[in-house]
Amino acid sequence: MALELHPDVAVLAPLLGTWEGSGTGEYPTIDDFAYVESITFSHVGKPFVAYTQRTKHPDTGLPMHAEAGYLRVPRPGSIEIVMAQPTGLAEIYEGAVVGGDAPLVLDVRSTSINSTPTAKEVTVTERTISVTGDDLHYTFRMAAVGHSLRHHLSATLHRVRE
Amino acid sequence: MALELHPDVAVLAPLLGTWEGSGTGEYPTIDDFAYVESITFSHVGKPFVAYTQRTKHPDTGLPMHAEAGYLRVPRPGSIEIVMAQPTGLAEIYEGAVVGGDAPLVLDVRSTSINSTPTAKEVTVTERTISVTGDDLHYTFRMAAVGHSLRHHLSATLHRVRE
Repeated sequence: MALELHPDVAVLAPLLGTWEGSGTGEYPTIDDFAYVESITFSHVGKPFVAYTQRTKHPDTGLPMHAEAGYLRVPRPGSIEIVMAQPTGLAEIYEGAVVGGDAPLVLDVRSTSINSTPTAKEVTVTERTISVTGDDLHYTFRMAAVGHSLRHHLSATLHRVRE
Repeated sequence: MALELHPDVAVLAPLLGTWEGSGTGEYPTIDDFAYVESITFSHVGKPFVAYTQRTKHPDTGLPMHAEAGYLRVPRPGSIEIVMAQPTGLAEIYEGAVVGGDAPLVLDVRSTSINSTPTAKEVTVTERTISVTGDDLHYTFRMAAVGHSLRHHLSATLHRVRE
């Protein structure tokens, strides 16, 4: 598709493409773990960018986590993310986006997290995503199952397709 | 992928694959409209089925709507859906699933709808999805922008890939 990126989300252009890399995770309730990850940001010319993600176990290759969502820029400098997780969570994030000539940085915090009756309790999540050239790094912080907000995930990926 | 479908979601096997077809929409606040649609239900061997959807204008081919989510079966006969929409909505649905030897029917209603500050107000949504062989039909009802729950969308699709 040679569709032009919608001007409302032009600041997100550095995200577009498919990224591959690896990350590590930790939380008080679980053993530390590592994962390999594939992320795709895409668009169809409308004022949003679509996001999908999958992680796999680094040794067995078995699927671990997945999520899907959409990014919008309601006004310059602001960003909204809507996210669905197969663990039973539907999240809304709001935050700031800095781009232009600088590396792209998205810094968002959940404003609401809805969950199905069988989902684990997650009360707050924060994500920071930064892109410099073909390198993407993110961190993920979470307050869940009775623990306060703390570091959970960190990963570095490289763009493998535009 | 020759991964086996997770037994928790075995009842959803008739959904798997890619579906194409067309639908029509109506609501008091907008003109009636038609669309062509592509839906994919997929899995990675974990206890959920992933869902993505895209609609296009039947004449221009331009993208109209998209959404992505995950289906889970918390116990036999019940279904949960987590959905993200680029319009700024994050929805949780709960409802019933009937399958086995009969046609597959999913009947769900939103239990919570979270939205970004710029999203239109949607208070309740209901979806009914039925699959008979390679034919899928759904209806979508919605209470939004001050109107009570009423018919919004109806579409029929045919399975084009397993």
